[in-house]
Amino acid sequence: MLYSTRSRASSAPKSSRVVSGKPASGEDSLIARYFRPLATDPGAFRLDDDAAALKPDGSDIVVTTDAIVEGVHFLSDDPPDTVARKALRVNLSDLAAKGATPAGFVLTLALRSADDETWLKPFAAALGEDAVQFACPLLGGDTVSTPGPLMVSVTAFGRVPPGKMIHRSGAKPGERVMVTGTIGDAALGLAILRGGKVHAAASDKAAREALIGRYRVPQPRVAMAEIVRDYASAAMDVSDGLAGDLTKLCGVSGVSAVIDLVSIPLSGAAQDLVSRGVVGLETLIAGGDDYEILCTLSEDCVEAFAQAAQHAGVAVSSIGTMVAGSAVPKFIDGQGREIALEYRSYSHF
Amino acid sequence: MLYSTRSRASSAPKSSRVVSGKPASGEDSLIARYFRPLATDPGAFRLDDDAAALKPDGSDIVVTTDAIVEGVHFLSDDPPDTVARKALRVNLSDLAAKGATPAGFVLTLALRSADDETWLKPFAAALGEDAVQFACPLLGGDTVSTPGPLMVSVTAFGRVPPGKMIHRSGAKPGERVMVTGTIGDAALGLAILRGGKVHAAASDKAAREALIGRYRVPQPRVAMAEIVRDYASAAMDVSDGLAGDLTKLCGVSGVSAVIDLVSIPLSGAAQDLVSRGVVGLETLIAGGDDYEILCTLSEDCVEAFAQAAQHAGVAVSSIGTMVAGSAVPKFIDGQGREIALEYRSYSHF
Repeated sequence: MLYSTRSRASSAPKSSRVVSGKPASGEDSLIARYFRPLATDPGAFRLDDDAAALKPDGSDIVVTTDAIVEGVHFLSDDPPDTVARKALRVNLSDLAAKGATPAGFVLTLALRSADDETWLKPFAAALGEDAVQFACPLLGGDTVSTPGPLMVSVTAFGRVPPGKMIHRSGAKPGERVMVTGTIGDAALGLAILRGGKVHAAASDKAAREALIGRYRVPQPRVAMAEIVRDYASAAMDVSDGLAGDLTKLCGVSGVSAVIDLVSIPLSGAAQDLVSRGVVGLETLIAGGDDYEILCTLSEDCVEAFAQAAQHAGVAVSSIGTMVAGSAVPKFIDGQGREIALEYRSYSHF
Repeated sequence: MLYSTRSRASSAPKSSRVVSGKPASGEDSLIARYFRPLATDPGAFRLDDDAAALKPDGSDIVVTTDAIVEGVHFLSDDPPDTVARKALRVNLSDLAAKGATPAGFVLTLALRSADDETWLKPFAAALGEDAVQFACPLLGGDTVSTPGPLMVSVTAFGRVPPGKMIHRSGAKPGERVMVTGTIGDAALGLAILRGGKVHAAASDKAAREALIGRYRVPQPRVAMAEIVRDYASAAMDVSDGLAGDLTKLCGVSGVSAVIDLVSIPLSGAAQDLVSRGVVGLETLIAGGDDYEILCTLSEDCVEAFAQAAQHAGVAVSSIGTMVAGSAVPKFIDGQGREIALEYRSYSHF
């Protein structure tokens, strides 16, 4: 535990801390060295206890949990600092989409036996930097050993005024569909890391690095939390691909949507690959790991929302309209034709 | 996610939910079938959202997180229902020791590819039973796939009046050391499952099953939460062995302790194995997985504490005294001799 050590009763003898006569086992000293400096919140009790405490301030506490697994959500050779940032940021992205201000997080770290201090030191340093940057301190956690892949599970807490969490439900016909940032970059970054045609085509080094960076280190839209809370009728973060995630939001809201494909915001690098025919736009909207915010707004809020976002330094784009019905959202191309997404997917890379 | 699905960008194509035109992927439908019935708290939003919400009621929210890993914290052939119960209960044990009343939990489940519904169904059913029994509803979570061992990580929430969480620190010289239940049973249960001399010696089937049950399914002392809060100066749960955990409590409190070995509460089955010389008492106090509460009380609280515990149906034992100093706690046998714990440990099984 980051709070403390805990039983590994099925594994090796663990009497070393009794033998040594010191409360600090190897795990305890690693925690003290690398994680205690991150536990700056008084409610973390310096990681000296079995639990943390979140003080009441009248807010609802928003709770989200996301785990990332080596070989599934990140690559085995991704650097430890980017693994740390991704683990925390995918959770910060959820909080922001719910309109919640970060309050802290707990960490479960399943370490491989090979994960020594060479790995742990940059991991903890990057985690600490992000905790400061996003004002989301480490409150506690658990470290366990695993013979399997490395896994990092984060449970993050945010605060919203009572009842003000923004849900996936709540979107209404006639509302505008908005999205932050750009879509598809992370999917392209992953494709580059995997090699293949995108790798071959993305010859510009800076563009290549930017796309890989978007895959490895999401940019959670924490600055948008309050703005989402103020204006959105429904919101979620885009993590499974815009098309799939919008479908979910529509499903829970009991509405449908019509999306204008040419309005979907692309980075210069992505636009270049699309215009050269390396990937289709429909591939990008089925790709994952964007960690942008998808939300719906009534028409009369759009201008104020866009201005507030601009003030927060976050680009937002209007990409379509919510419509009545329970149909799967439609994606319309520049010629007004509906794109048949069912035959275009991530697997085309 | 139990809240929703989320990207597995490094793995297989995941466009099936776009293909099918349904918001429910395979994971979503598993969640709906097995986990949604557990999400009875309104703050879980039927697992239809990206996050849960804990309502403010003026309490501090106590947060604890513990993960259990196949082959490390439980055995590969442990039944799914006991894995579920253990995963939740080790966290409930922490909450109880901190004086906190359960409020809910989130779950991260790293499933092996072989973990199909045959595994998931009894897992979820048992988790649901425990959630009801301990009034600790599922609020959300994340499911991920892993090529490695099964892992279950729980983050549990409890409530205490502001500032009333009981810490490991706070024990003072002269105070009584108390422990709930009996010590060493789980370590014996694990030894039986592993075979060897304890397995051979524990010939009574009922006793054997009872000890194995203590290993597989801890009995968190949730009924003691309020009593600990009312009377204890310091507390923690015993999960790494009584000797090691007391050493930690002493370290954080800046005191030492003298423990009377013959006062340490043993079950009939454990007493039998000790009296027959199969295991030494010192082995039991270095064994893990007890999930009892260790706490310290001022002398004048002992009677009221014991009465309240009796009323709650939990046996408590006075096992020693806190003393000034920073020495490792001493364990004294019936002849007044200090036991050299450094040469006796769990590995002796």
